[in-house]
Amino acid sequence: MSQLKVGFIGLGAIGKWMALSVQRAGLPLLVYDLRSEPLAELAAAGATVASSSREAAANSDVLVIMVLNHAQAEAVLAGENGALAGLSPGKTVIVMSTISPAQARHLASLVTPTGARYVDSPVSGGWLRAKDGTLTLMLGGTAEAVEAARPVLEAMGKHLYCAGEEVGSGQSLKMINQMLMGIHEVAASEAMVLATKLGLDPELVYEVISHGTGDSWAFRNRVDRLMARDFTNRGALEILHKDLGIVLEAARDTKTPLLLTPMAYQAYQAGMVAGLAREDDSAVAKVLERLAGVEVKKRPAKTE
Amino acid sequence: MSQLKVGFIGLGAIGKWMALSVQRAGLPLLVYDLRSEPLAELAAAGATVASSSREAAANSDVLVIMVLNHAQAEAVLAGENGALAGLSPGKTVIVMSTISPAQARHLASLVTPTGARYVDSPVSGGWLRAKDGTLTLMLGGTAEAVEAARPVLEAMGKHLYCAGEEVGSGQSLKMINQMLMGIHEVAASEAMVLATKLGLDPELVYEVISHGTGDSWAFRNRVDRLMARDFTNRGALEILHKDLGIVLEAARDTKTPLLLTPMAYQAYQAGMVAGLAREDDSAVAKVLERLAGVEVKKRPAKTE
Repeated sequence: MSQLKVGFIGLGAIGKWMALSVQRAGLPLLVYDLRSEPLAELAAAGATVASSSREAAANSDVLVIMVLNHAQAEAVLAGENGALAGLSPGKTVIVMSTISPAQARHLASLVTPTGARYVDSPVSGGWLRAKDGTLTLMLGGTAEAVEAARPVLEAMGKHLYCAGEEVGSGQSLKMINQMLMGIHEVAASEAMVLATKLGLDPELVYEVISHGTGDSWAFRNRVDRLMARDFTNRGALEILHKDLGIVLEAARDTKTPLLLTPMAYQAYQAGMVAGLAREDDSAVAKVLERLAGVEVKKRPAKTE
Repeated sequence: MSQLKVGFIGLGAIGKWMALSVQRAGLPLLVYDLRSEPLAELAAAGATVASSSREAAANSDVLVIMVLNHAQAEAVLAGENGALAGLSPGKTVIVMSTISPAQARHLASLVTPTGARYVDSPVSGGWLRAKDGTLTLMLGGTAEAVEAARPVLEAMGKHLYCAGEEVGSGQSLKMINQMLMGIHEVAASEAMVLATKLGLDPELVYEVISHGTGDSWAFRNRVDRLMARDFTNRGALEILHKDLGIVLEAARDTKTPLLLTPMAYQAYQAGMVAGLAREDDSAVAKVLERLAGVEVKKRPAKTE
C-alpha cells in the first residue's frame, strides 16, 4: 500500500463518501471543509482535520478538491489561507468538481506556477457508488500526473477513463454524458405527457419503451419516479441546469451548432423559475406537465 | 393448430418476413402484392397467391395489411378490387403499418360497415426479428377482435402488448417509441459532433456513454454505424421522418405542447432535403456534421 499522503477539501453529499473511500483504502488522510459536521464524521472515521486549505495542501502529496463549482474551487486555491500557498513541485492537485473545460484550464493556470501537477477528474455514479468507491472517473491530464495520483483515484473509482493529456479533457467527456442525460430526461417527460394525453396507461408505456428502441438510461431511471410522484432529491434539478449551461458555453466556445440541448436547457431553466431547483432532476417533467395540463401517474389498481 | 385462413397483403422489406412466419406456423396463407417478385418467393415457400386484395379478403378469416402508409392501406381496402368487397361479419382485419391513430380510426370506419372486426398492430423490431417471428406488436382493438386474430399475431410476434380497446391505441404506443428513438438519434448525433469539436476520441466517448447515465438504445445502436461511416439502409431515414410527422400531428390533435420533438423533426426534414431519405436513419448525423463542419469517425490505429 502506497503511503501517499492525501489532502481532501469539500465534504459534501458526494465528497464525504469519496473521502471515506480514501480513508478505507488506508491512505493517510487530511480533510478540510467550511462546515464542522462532515469534518467530525471524517475525524470519527480516523482522518485528521486540517485548519485550512493551505494546511491540507502543505501536508499532502495529492490534494483532492471536490467542491460545488468553479467559484468555490478558485476560492479553495487562491482565497485566504488557500491551497496555492501550500503547493510545491512533486505534488498533484485533482479537481473532481464538474466544471467547464475552460474553467479547468483556468484552475490549472493557477496551480502550475507552484510546480504542482494538475488533473481534472469529474465523477459519475452518484452517492451510492461514491460510498462503495466504485465511481466512474473521467481524467484529463498528463500521464505523469495521472500516475502520481493513481492510488488515490483507484480508492474512489472503479472505471478510470483517460480522456486526454490536455487539462479539461475529463470535463469535456463528462459534459457529453450530462448533455445526453439532460436531453433524454426532457424527452422522457415529453413522451410520457403525450402518452397521457393520448390516453395510454403510463405503466404499460414504461414497460414497452424500457424494452424497445425508444429506451434510455434516463427513461428507465426517471419515469418510475415520475409515475410514483416521488421527487425526493437524489440529484438536484439545479445540477443538470448547471451542467447543460456548461454544454452551451462549450458549444459557443467551439462554435458548434446544437439543436436539442438549447431547448432541453429551457426546460430546466423553467424548472428553476418554478421553484424546482432542489427537487430531484426528474421534476423537470412538471414543466412539461404544466404546459400540457396533465399529470403522469400510475392508474389506480383495477377492482373489477 | 388453428385452421384460421390468413390473407396477407403487403410483402415489403418487413412484410415478406412476417408472411413467411405465418406460413411457417402452418396457417393456410393467401398472399397479395403489386410486385411479382415477393409473390414468387412466398409461392415457393408454399403460400397461395391471390389475384387481388378482394380475393385475399374473401378467402380468409384474418386479413393482414402491411403496406407503407395510410394511403396505400386505404387503396388496399377501398380501391378497385379492394378488400372491403371481400369482408363480412366474423372476419378480422389487422393493419400493421405504422400510421397515425386518427388514420387507424379512419380505416376502421371503412371496415366496420362490412361487419368485420378491426385491430391495429404496428410492429417494432426490424427485419431480423420479423424473420424470426419475434416482433413486438402493439395492439389496439377490442378483446374479442384481438382474440380472433391471436394465432396469426403469435406467429409473427413474441411480445404482444394490448394498448387499449380503442382502435388507434396500438399506434399511439408505437408513436411514443418512435418519438423517443427519433429524439435520441438526433441527440446522439449532436453529442458526437460536439465531442469531436472538443477533441475527444469518438471510440472512448462511445465506450463511456454506453456504460453511463447518458446511454440510450439509439446511441448504442447508431453511433457505431456513424463512426464506421456505414450508412447502408437498415431502416430508412424517411421512415423516422414520417413517424415524427405522425407525432407532431397527434400532438396538434390532442393539444400537447412539445419541446424536443419538433426540433428533432427539423433534423430529419433537413436530411430529406439533403437527399438522405433512403440512407440509414443514422445518416441524420450528417445534418449536424454539415452544420458544424466536422465528421465523426474513428481515429486511425495508433502506430507508436
